[in-house]
Amino acid sequence: MDKNKNISMAVIKRLPKYYRYLEELMKHEVDRISSKELGEKIGFTASQIRQDLNCFGDFGQQGYGYNVKELYNQIGSILGLGRGYEAALVGAGNIGQAVSNYSRFENMGFKITAIFDANPKLIGMKIRDVEIMDIDEMASVLNSHKIDIGIICVPRKNAQNVADGLIKGGIRAIWNFAPVDLVVPEPVKVENVHLSESLLTLIYLLNESDS
Amino acid sequence: MDKNKNISMAVIKRLPKYYRYLEELMKHEVDRISSKELGEKIGFTASQIRQDLNCFGDFGQQGYGYNVKELYNQIGSILGLGRGYEAALVGAGNIGQAVSNYSRFENMGFKITAIFDANPKLIGMKIRDVEIMDIDEMASVLNSHKIDIGIICVPRKNAQNVADGLIKGGIRAIWNFAPVDLVVPEPVKVENVHLSESLLTLIYLLNESDS
Repeated sequence: MDKNKNISMAVIKRLPKYYRYLEELMKHEVDRISSKELGEKIGFTASQIRQDLNCFGDFGQQGYGYNVKELYNQIGSILGLGRGYEAALVGAGNIGQAVSNYSRFENMGFKITAIFDANPKLIGMKIRDVEIMDIDEMASVLNSHKIDIGIICVPRKNAQNVADGLIKGGIRAIWNFAPVDLVVPEPVKVENVHLSESLLTLIYLLNESDS
Repeated sequence: MDKNKNISMAVIKRLPKYYRYLEELMKHEVDRISSKELGEKIGFTASQIRQDLNCFGDFGQQGYGYNVKELYNQIGSILGLGRGYEAALVGAGNIGQAVSNYSRFENMGFKITAIFDANPKLIGMKIRDVEIMDIDEMASVLNSHKIDIGIICVPRKNAQNVADGLIKGGIRAIWNFAPVDLVVPEPVKVENVHLSESLLTLIYLLNESDS
């Protein structure tokens, strides 16, 4: 599929949402849906949906709407879900363990195949059959295995160091849970999950509605 | 402090980032900073920073810049961090346990004081001194305790039900980790942490840079 470059980040961020809603529709055995109905479900306008999907190709048919399964597969393909992804997770503390245990990701072809930590108490333990290895082994493991994604779940002060190590090992996509903005060279992509910032946003909204 | 209503969500989402950077600066004993320097650190332009902060009041002085501690305190106050917040967490599985164990939140005055689950194996166990209670007790606990925030860490299919229960119990701010968009009445605020969507975005970006 030809990918239209320069798709705005806002559109990209909406694609996973489309994907999730279409998955739901398939589970409920809905075969087709109009942009209006889909919009009502997701909370977007019909024209927003048509505009978004037009960025990637010619989906849907006037008067018929979208074939749910077809659109689901197409968005999956746009997202790059046709193949599997292997990830290395660094930092097997609370968040790291939760992410390692989250089986939902495997439906997306995503598998954590290496876990590293510096804590001797954790090294050698297993999470879902993956043994926690010493962080000192990371460089050699990354060298000898094809790993696509690095997941950073270490404390803030170690996060940049870990990112540098992952990138040196050939990783070009980092899922960062540490409360810090990583500095990475151009081709490397970072997606942050900043829990504290999310909570602060909620606290602000709570107070705003109180005042 | 007078709050300017109708602040855009984009500005609100940036405030926690300012707060985090200012905290870092204080740790490094930086007393003052210009909007230009602050912008370089955060990755925003100086004029963006001045615009954002002007939404909330008159910060900074021409030629002097911002007093770091003062700005930190003011943003903390805008975010509503002057007082403590109590939260009830529902769903003590992987993600729920990780969130309950994340001590960083306590610096923000945020404390999880009640945890609920439906799993008999978990009920009665403790996470950081908070006992996991039967979800059936949620209504009465919410009635008798002043709880500000509900945290939903249950599977998708139960999330709306749990949200309804929290709202019925007087909760007006929900931190939702379930992969679903909750339907809530007007005054209730929801902040989502959608891990699968975040991961899908990263996979898209990885593929985009490959193609």
